[in-house]
Amino acid sequence: MTDTVNMPLSGITVLDLGQVYQGPYAAMLMARAGADVIKVEPVDGEPVRRRSAVSKGAMLPLAMLNSNKRGITLNLKSEEGRHLLLRLVEHADVLLENFAPGVMDGLGVGWEVLHAVNPRLIYASASGFGLSGPDRDALAMDLTIQAVSGAMSVTGFPDGPPLKSGPTFADFLSGTHLYGAVLTALFERTRTGKGRLVEVAMVETVYPALASNLSLLYGTSGAVTTRTGNRHGGLAIAPYNVYPAGDGHVAILCIKEAHWTNLLRAMGREDLADDPRFSTNALRVRNLEATDAVVEAWTTARTRAEIFAAIKQFRIPCAPVRDLEEVMNDPHMHERGMLEWVDHPELGRVVLPTSPLRIHGADRPATAPSPMLGQHNEEVFGGLLGLSSDEIADLRAKGAI
Amino acid sequence: MTDTVNMPLSGITVLDLGQVYQGPYAAMLMARAGADVIKVEPVDGEPVRRRSAVSKGAMLPLAMLNSNKRGITLNLKSEEGRHLLLRLVEHADVLLENFAPGVMDGLGVGWEVLHAVNPRLIYASASGFGLSGPDRDALAMDLTIQAVSGAMSVTGFPDGPPLKSGPTFADFLSGTHLYGAVLTALFERTRTGKGRLVEVAMVETVYPALASNLSLLYGTSGAVTTRTGNRHGGLAIAPYNVYPAGDGHVAILCIKEAHWTNLLRAMGREDLADDPRFSTNALRVRNLEATDAVVEAWTTARTRAEIFAAIKQFRIPCAPVRDLEEVMNDPHMHERGMLEWVDHPELGRVVLPTSPLRIHGADRPATAPSPMLGQHNEEVFGGLLGLSSDEIADLRAKGAI
Repeated sequence: MTDTVNMPLSGITVLDLGQVYQGPYAAMLMARAGADVIKVEPVDGEPVRRRSAVSKGAMLPLAMLNSNKRGITLNLKSEEGRHLLLRLVEHADVLLENFAPGVMDGLGVGWEVLHAVNPRLIYASASGFGLSGPDRDALAMDLTIQAVSGAMSVTGFPDGPPLKSGPTFADFLSGTHLYGAVLTALFERTRTGKGRLVEVAMVETVYPALASNLSLLYGTSGAVTTRTGNRHGGLAIAPYNVYPAGDGHVAILCIKEAHWTNLLRAMGREDLADDPRFSTNALRVRNLEATDAVVEAWTTARTRAEIFAAIKQFRIPCAPVRDLEEVMNDPHMHERGMLEWVDHPELGRVVLPTSPLRIHGADRPATAPSPMLGQHNEEVFGGLLGLSSDEIADLRAKGAI
Repeated sequence: MTDTVNMPLSGITVLDLGQVYQGPYAAMLMARAGADVIKVEPVDGEPVRRRSAVSKGAMLPLAMLNSNKRGITLNLKSEEGRHLLLRLVEHADVLLENFAPGVMDGLGVGWEVLHAVNPRLIYASASGFGLSGPDRDALAMDLTIQAVSGAMSVTGFPDGPPLKSGPTFADFLSGTHLYGAVLTALFERTRTGKGRLVEVAMVETVYPALASNLSLLYGTSGAVTTRTGNRHGGLAIAPYNVYPAGDGHVAILCIKEAHWTNLLRAMGREDLADDPRFSTNALRVRNLEATDAVVEAWTTARTRAEIFAAIKQFRIPCAPVRDLEEVMNDPHMHERGMLEWVDHPELGRVVLPTSPLRIHGADRPATAPSPMLGQHNEEVFGGLLGLSSDEIADLRAKGAI
């Protein structure tokens, strides 16, 4: 996609068969690091593209996660389509997919077949439960993984139902792991010359993130309340909560003892400095309700900006709860180039993320909007594989592309 | 840590100055991929180790995220301590830290100094807001990042307060990105021979995960409800919810039209197949309440197991909401080797995660429990730097290690 060589992944070609969020995000990180990423979609588009039937906005995630890729169509259920994939694999360093386990094998284009075609190919598979084990074939999406992984059981209030996290973090956590797995294999290949099958299971990427919550189970028989509302997941830190403000909410926490003594100063409550209920973190945890009540009495009477201003000078971890409109327009992320206003051919002027991976001194490619369906069919099938216009037209007529 | 060479990162030495979750997790992924990871703690231990004052269980996260590392102590506020760090850097490929921006520079051991000592060193920094921009110096933890990133504003019910996600996903999402950034630089170094400063900002790693939620804002003036309870974050899919069962809850969603028609069969509600309220996903989204009511009426009268059994044969995405006790003992993750029962010298018999990164054909190191504070001081300062026992004793007496 670029001739610049000062990008970490320049010269690396990726076939991105990813769909929805997990696979496409991993491949987007590769594209933003300089790889030539070819997004391979079925002839009627990937699921998020088809969601535009609900509303135009429902396609925004497609634009967010597929910048700087070239787009082709390929019908893997046709003989010609599979043949084209094998030819593309000859030119590729990485093939990435997040179909259910066994789908690619069933189509005759699984790891073993592709590895025989190109022994240097890194084949990356992401799925809900991985390529082995008793739950391998359970269907998985972000929602169901949040359910089975335990994430929902620790989200929400103790007296309320289990709740999903609003961000589809299981998709993105596993997509980011997939990027890491591919780069691990690319690094290893510089030593061995060999490609690898690499694999990430969504449910496994959630487990480490439950570290705080799991600590609550330690030494118990398991019958403990693990939904702690906005309090620390391990109930090991206080204050640690989201407190009501006059115009919304603020998050405040005290990691060090100095944070607490400074918070007392910020609140004008130095009278509590020697209060035996609050003098250490362990004591404040034992007196959770009373500790939170002190903070809440102060925040409730103030705006988010007033609280933040009063607290900032004392270096206490604190943040306003922001809504999406504020976040999308965040001056900080726009100044840093993480977010950009882009004129998208299908969606108009929208905010797109770039890549959270910053490699200082390396160039970053200019943003190219996500491809339209099959936009680069001629370029890729003609340029990379050397097919003629007639051959491409024939493949299109047959429904292979 | 191992002599086996069939590990992707064998021969790579990592100085892990990470603390709490984000940095240590990235370094643990490196250790599990075969790197020699040296965990560098202050003389009184990192924050999670000190949390054991609250309860022994509060130290479980330390055990979870620091397996397969060697542990040393180093007082970076002492001249001798800084000198030792510079000598260690001569032997290192990667140094990783998640202090607030500027802390390492302030100590005289920032990127520029270390890069001069070892031009091949990859210096990895993770922080809340990154190394530049107006919010650079705001203190950040998982809780505050969940607040400012917009994640809380989309978690919870429309009529309830904003909520944090129970898992500390901002820490882990950014920690995983940090792993990806380091591997990107390691890969690039095989071409250039040069080390890089790489950087990850927590708040930036959350933004892409809001893709569904942000789609709700498209084409509006911003005044939209973005907390959707357990429904799809973009309100673009139905059914998509967590439904009450007789003995808990289940998550069910229909991505394809076939899922809906199959769900009707599973529920014995084929009479609704031609109902004009439900015949397409777009229509079901328009009739969300009625759609959910149909599913809920069926789930409420059944157990999780009954629902799962009835649905599984029809290949509809569905999962029970599991609690932590179930997850910790999950036969699937134990069979796959993601989870292991380990006798930990400080905590006894506990379940520890390994690595979600599976590189087929590569060896994985056997689990070594997280080091005790300073456990490998003699081994590292003696072995790697060649210091004598007397010199090490002297450094200890001076409080440098």
